[in-house]
Amino acid sequence: MADTATRTPIDFSTHPDRYRHWSIDVDGTIATLTMAVDPEGGLRDDYELKTNSYDLGVDIELYDAVQRLRFEHPEVKAVVVTGGLDKIFCAGANIKMLAGATHEHKVNFCKFTNETRNSIEDATAHSGQTWIAAVNGTAAGGGYELALACDEILLIDDRSSAVSLPEVPLLAVLPGTGGLTRVVDKRFVRRDLADAFATRNEGVRGQTAVDWNLVDAIAPASSFAELVAGRANARAASSDRPDAAAGVELTPLEVSITDDRLAYSNVTVDVDRGLGTATFTIAGPGTTQPATGEALVAAGTDGWLFATARELDAAILHLRFNETEIGTWVFRTIGSPDAVATAEDVCAAEPDHWFVREVRLFWARVLKRLDVSARTLVTLVEPGSCFAGVLAELVLVADRSFMLEGTWEDHDEPPPPATIRLTAANGGWFPMSNHLTRLRTRFWGRDESYVAASGLAGKDLVAADALAAELVTFTPDDLDWDDEVRLMLEERNSFSPDALTGMEANYRFVGPETMETKIFSRLTAWQNWIFQRPNAVGPDGALQRFGSGSRPDYDHRRV
Amino acid sequence: MADTATRTPIDFSTHPDRYRHWSIDVDGTIATLTMAVDPEGGLRDDYELKTNSYDLGVDIELYDAVQRLRFEHPEVKAVVVTGGLDKIFCAGANIKMLAGATHEHKVNFCKFTNETRNSIEDATAHSGQTWIAAVNGTAAGGGYELALACDEILLIDDRSSAVSLPEVPLLAVLPGTGGLTRVVDKRFVRRDLADAFATRNEGVRGQTAVDWNLVDAIAPASSFAELVAGRANARAASSDRPDAAAGVELTPLEVSITDDRLAYSNVTVDVDRGLGTATFTIAGPGTTQPATGEALVAAGTDGWLFATARELDAAILHLRFNETEIGTWVFRTIGSPDAVATAEDVCAAEPDHWFVREVRLFWARVLKRLDVSARTLVTLVEPGSCFAGVLAELVLVADRSFMLEGTWEDHDEPPPPATIRLTAANGGWFPMSNHLTRLRTRFWGRDESYVAASGLAGKDLVAADALAAELVTFTPDDLDWDDEVRLMLEERNSFSPDALTGMEANYRFVGPETMETKIFSRLTAWQNWIFQRPNAVGPDGALQRFGSGSRPDYDHRRV
Repeated sequence: MADTATRTPIDFSTHPDRYRHWSIDVDGTIATLTMAVDPEGGLRDDYELKTNSYDLGVDIELYDAVQRLRFEHPEVKAVVVTGGLDKIFCAGANIKMLAGATHEHKVNFCKFTNETRNSIEDATAHSGQTWIAAVNGTAAGGGYELALACDEILLIDDRSSAVSLPEVPLLAVLPGTGGLTRVVDKRFVRRDLADAFATRNEGVRGQTAVDWNLVDAIAPASSFAELVAGRANARAASSDRPDAAAGVELTPLEVSITDDRLAYSNVTVDVDRGLGTATFTIAGPGTTQPATGEALVAAGTDGWLFATARELDAAILHLRFNETEIGTWVFRTIGSPDAVATAEDVCAAEPDHWFVREVRLFWARVLKRLDVSARTLVTLVEPGSCFAGVLAELVLVADRSFMLEGTWEDHDEPPPPATIRLTAANGGWFPMSNHLTRLRTRFWGRDESYVAASGLAGKDLVAADALAAELVTFTPDDLDWDDEVRLMLEERNSFSPDALTGMEANYRFVGPETMETKIFSRLTAWQNWIFQRPNAVGPDGALQRFGSGSRPDYDHRRV
Repeated sequence: MADTATRTPIDFSTHPDRYRHWSIDVDGTIATLTMAVDPEGGLRDDYELKTNSYDLGVDIELYDAVQRLRFEHPEVKAVVVTGGLDKIFCAGANIKMLAGATHEHKVNFCKFTNETRNSIEDATAHSGQTWIAAVNGTAAGGGYELALACDEILLIDDRSSAVSLPEVPLLAVLPGTGGLTRVVDKRFVRRDLADAFATRNEGVRGQTAVDWNLVDAIAPASSFAELVAGRANARAASSDRPDAAAGVELTPLEVSITDDRLAYSNVTVDVDRGLGTATFTIAGPGTTQPATGEALVAAGTDGWLFATARELDAAILHLRFNETEIGTWVFRTIGSPDAVATAEDVCAAEPDHWFVREVRLFWARVLKRLDVSARTLVTLVEPGSCFAGVLAELVLVADRSFMLEGTWEDHDEPPPPATIRLTAANGGWFPMSNHLTRLRTRFWGRDESYVAASGLAGKDLVAADALAAELVTFTPDDLDWDDEVRLMLEERNSFSPDALTGMEANYRFVGPETMETKIFSRLTAWQNWIFQRPNAVGPDGALQRFGSGSRPDYDHRRV
């Protein structure tokens, strides 16, 4: 299969001035985000993005827009997403793009689009910024799934515009960007109607779409704008976002990228191709950090807390798409635990300040990206590190952690022994997709141990303490450290990456499941399976045959 | 890949007298089930079942034993499962069997073994029959997963016997028979220790196995029997099963199998290969049915309620394994709704009678098999049918249902219009794997509609009533019936079976997830994906290379 996507590094940075597919129009408390995809603007040149179909490049712009609306526009209380082409809202993921993509690109593309749609729901639920879909034309497949991520779906009633999920009948794949899950678990569409809906190419329109609860309201063209404005204003009226605050401009991230190194200001990533590892080194704050919300705004993208989240986010996306053979991510920190704890204190001091809240919610989303990254996560807690509060989440996120007992023996002036410090941050600031904290998840089913560990908040725990509190996996001393860590990394690199991905995806989400975890487990895992099946991706499969004039040839054996 | 398993029809009927791999020894209230697999007794002849490794044939015997212990042995209050070979408890699924099996056989094999292990947990939880694993030797992979299905795991402490999940490091597949899920969600093993455990070929033994909570207790060989007996007796003492009741012998099912037909006494299945359908026709009771528990025992396997469950169970398993190209199962009933409601009344009259309870729990398991069957389920509610109570579950289980409005126009003496009758059975007798009833699942998120539908219990609802109560999908009249039903079945047969499987698996389990649904979704879907990946099943993959002396050659790209 042709695939240039994995050869040219994918760049996730963009700016509204450079958007080719979206435009943002802010009018008072309402923003309108309009999709008008440039057919020639695809990431690869073997497909055209016709009829508002999208590829990763289109979704990178959408993600950028979501971020800018939250950070640069505190005054925006409702976001209307709509289509900018005649009679078309959005046609979903481009089929030729899917047909020509590698398996890992398809899977990562879906994961990223899912994360962006989850972030739209996060804005509605936690940020006072309600998303509304103004479906002013056909919304097919991923187009309807984009609408499903909004809190309200308004459909134009013009006898032609329909919502549909035609993936199963037309393409032999699933509506895998949350569609199946949200239809039944968010909109509570009855399962047999949902079945009828998702097997009907032409979809459902008009009053039936309302009756089946596929949309919230319909209006003819003559009053559609009025309906949309009315709903947007109503939702904006109940928002707790500030009326007159200045936003924080998302300045371009500065990064130096060389063959084996990615260097931002606070986050550096070193790739070891022999070992299959990428080592993230995160530097704690080197200067005094803002203590109030307004000071945090004034620091803008230079503040350590916000800058580090942005850099970590960018590094994760870069590695996922551009370094697929690097299967293990190792996390290290350098700095002062006190400085980290002080830097995050602003979240406790002014939790309801709009920008403080946004920074905290952003950290939560970045950490969730790690939970669903198909990479082994290893954290090394060494002397001189600063795993406190927000950075202690990197210990809890890991599949395996090592903490050095004692300090380096061969240093003339060895740094003090490594410590871990839990803070209020670990008690609820960054819930996982399962709606539990990482600390609660770690102690699932063992309440006593959970209470004991939680009770250590504020204390600097050395290796023996952290081991006793069950916060780390192993605590080798200086004599064993290098061998033990290297052995683990070499061993990991010798295993099948697929088996590791499946194992990690099962272990990381213990306890309750939520709509989000269902999307990343049940729905995504089935979609990944289907993305391997000849009926979808084989030479006679539906993705290859689509648009060729000849029908796919299916192997009818069921599992 | 060579696979004779799909060519020779697989027969699920067996009897302890014919077991080649297991033996049942009942001593008072304790049964001991011993595994000693005959290496030559595999279902195919291209592998040997060495070291207590198993294939489907071994698991068919285990399923038979589980059923007989429940029905034939009301006096058995605890079941000890142990190994009958020197130093070996069980080595898990046979690797050469897996390497040579078709994808659909592997998936169905895993599904069936999962269902059997779930039924072991069901016996412990609901039937007063507690399963205890006496791990008297190595328990590897599926062997340890069998132990995990038991309520207690006792491990011999002999410096060699270990429990292990070596699938990831050795075979590049998952411990897919519930292992990953049960380790963290049932035994609450901390995720990083669980990770260390499942990547360690040699597993964990002795006190460490207790410390990590992989087992409940250890004892040296000299006192192991004493430990096992003590635990079994203690658990038996708290059972509510009767002390002196006669069991119900599971007589062989009588069935006539021809090319396109499967005929039991109450259940008939007709296969239409052109349409890709198997039509189940279930006859309601033709005679007066037992009204008390003791009368139900006296009727034994001839009683309609029990016989029908057994026949449906057998038909499902036959079709899953032997008719993989038949993608749609259609359900019809013939008989009197009153007779069905009267027959099931015994479950309301004597819910705690051991055999009544067993029959109800068995129906629950059979219906759960339908929920996880990778087939489209369609129910046709026609004049002369008897969709009441337990059989009304077949309407609720369906992906799509049709109910005839009015009656057949061309009959001289047309039967009365079709009805559906909800009873107490639909209110809680047969919970799904998500721990909800099918009625509750159907109305997930819509409490008012749920209450309204529930309020109609006891009433015979004609098509208009059933449609208004949202119990059926479509209600064509005689004029449209044939075309509408045929069109739907033809359409279904034209779709990719894989996409349908994925869609149905997502729609059927709305709302909460449980350990069981996690096993059938997250774990199974990932395993199915891995079962398609070259790293596992390709010519250089781990399953093919295992035992060859040459190491697998992995593609290291992560998704």
